[in-house]
Amino acid sequence: MNGSYYVIGIDMGGTNTALGVVDARGRILYRGKISTTDYSTGEEYAEALGNAINNLIVDDEVRNKIKGIGMGVPNGNMNDGTIEKAANIPWAKTVNVPIAAMITAKTGFPCKLTNDANAAALGEMIYGSAKGMKDFIVITLGTGLGSGIVSNGQLVVGHDGFAGELGHVTMVRHNGRLCGCGRTGCLETYASATGVAKTAREFLDLNPEKNSVLREIIYRPITSKDVFEAAKKGDELAIDVFNFTGKILGEALCDFVTYSSPQAIILFGGLAHSGDFLLKPLQEAMDNHILNVFKGKTRIIISQLNDAEAAILGASALAWEEQ
Amino acid sequence: MNGSYYVIGIDMGGTNTALGVVDARGRILYRGKISTTDYSTGEEYAEALGNAINNLIVDDEVRNKIKGIGMGVPNGNMNDGTIEKAANIPWAKTVNVPIAAMITAKTGFPCKLTNDANAAALGEMIYGSAKGMKDFIVITLGTGLGSGIVSNGQLVVGHDGFAGELGHVTMVRHNGRLCGCGRTGCLETYASATGVAKTAREFLDLNPEKNSVLREIIYRPITSKDVFEAAKKGDELAIDVFNFTGKILGEALCDFVTYSSPQAIILFGGLAHSGDFLLKPLQEAMDNHILNVFKGKTRIIISQLNDAEAAILGASALAWEEQ
Repeated sequence: MNGSYYVIGIDMGGTNTALGVVDARGRILYRGKISTTDYSTGEEYAEALGNAINNLIVDDEVRNKIKGIGMGVPNGNMNDGTIEKAANIPWAKTVNVPIAAMITAKTGFPCKLTNDANAAALGEMIYGSAKGMKDFIVITLGTGLGSGIVSNGQLVVGHDGFAGELGHVTMVRHNGRLCGCGRTGCLETYASATGVAKTAREFLDLNPEKNSVLREIIYRPITSKDVFEAAKKGDELAIDVFNFTGKILGEALCDFVTYSSPQAIILFGGLAHSGDFLLKPLQEAMDNHILNVFKGKTRIIISQLNDAEAAILGASALAWEEQ
Repeated sequence: MNGSYYVIGIDMGGTNTALGVVDARGRILYRGKISTTDYSTGEEYAEALGNAINNLIVDDEVRNKIKGIGMGVPNGNMNDGTIEKAANIPWAKTVNVPIAAMITAKTGFPCKLTNDANAAALGEMIYGSAKGMKDFIVITLGTGLGSGIVSNGQLVVGHDGFAGELGHVTMVRHNGRLCGCGRTGCLETYASATGVAKTAREFLDLNPEKNSVLREIIYRPITSKDVFEAAKKGDELAIDVFNFTGKILGEALCDFVTYSSPQAIILFGGLAHSGDFLLKPLQEAMDNHILNVFKGKTRIIISQLNDAEAAILGASALAWEEQ
């Protein structure tokens, strides 16, 4: 068992990098934080992160029990341990940085990395709702839509380490919304916090006769949280927005089930906490639309991991895997 | 190495069941055949197939070298070794038949089964174009569209053994074609032999002013082969049919790539041999439509396995896997 060991989890966000020493039960014992962006080269960042890791380890007794380091990073290539041209990281915008090897060099620990959604999937498998499952998908509903796919107990990373970009399956093939990826109609332009806000604005414009508390928001952009709060107050237009979002996401999940027939799909991130406003139309779309052989087989689960801790836990889960 | 061993491959078709003893280089040494349908119970079929297998084994020297049996069957549940309610098999129409265990009982050999498309994927991995690949997808283009997905060197079968139904991802969400599965807009209603024939009939109806040699076929239904022959003669409408088919299949493959990022997608079956008529628009659709991070990474390959032998080889490949 892993009972007496620790791992280190690192969550590299667009602004800050959070790190923690984690035990086998998913408790974060020690925490640290550095800036992600205050460096001009990957070497400088690795130096700072290496120091932060070493400072986190309070004594040799802890050091001797650490199995390794797991990192969740933007544009992480799991196979190579590199960050590949991550648009939001100044020191990795135009280059591939072999950050895993650099951190191993600074700390002496084996280090693996993956993208955030894959880390979330591992976190669910080791500490969360997917304990004991061998086939499941985690969908992260944040600014965009990320996905981590586990098949036969292993992350699906593909030949290049970049598999699982389910936010970019095409859901609308004609006149779809423009996506950040440069294409149109991608799932994440509809099913994400950004997508919900956009749908709300569209529905307000398309139904000028319809009253909605969302019309009172005029001095700032509408957010998905506004739509949720409005729905809770019984606002019909806001409820319509969730119905639309749940339906398109539910139909996408039907396609995902035809690929890998998961035991469960776990929804993670702010939008996942919209309760039945999202879940009910989503489940209805799945029930109506799923291929017969899969009917009633795949459970939809809302992640129970603490949002603030999940990113560190998920990344740390990577370090429990065989090196 | 497997050099001195043999496996038995069994391809259960809707009419006949073909079987063969296969060596490690993919040569079929001995062959047999029985009817699939001339039995009223699974027990009778298993008895006949068991006898056919035992008759195929010419002497004890061969018997001692046989590692096991692999079967490709309709509605095969790989996890349980059962045929589950296969509409076209009279003795399995309404029941689940544990055929793998029954064949082991009759022959003394371990027996595994899977569906045809998964068998094709294993066949490509062990004897065909996917040798040495760990991440690839085989698409079988026959009457319908089947798929076998290999991720990290393992078949993706899902929690219930039925994963990889890519013929049933939804490609047309409004007014899509009715599919045999009871839903509408499934990929296989467009990208399959049946789909090509249907597209031809639609294009003929929609473009009454357009000349086409296909208009001369009036006393029988148009087939995909007719469309191919017409395209070879330069028939514009037939070429349009392939352009339409290649585009919709290419766009579907883009979604498949976002899922498992395969090194290659291997096309198998009659329609795959339509040459550039299908391949050119397919590749063009992929180049235009694929997510940037995957651009130019996934090769499209036409299977080189002999169609007549591939089903037995594919099924036999299952028996080389660890028991």
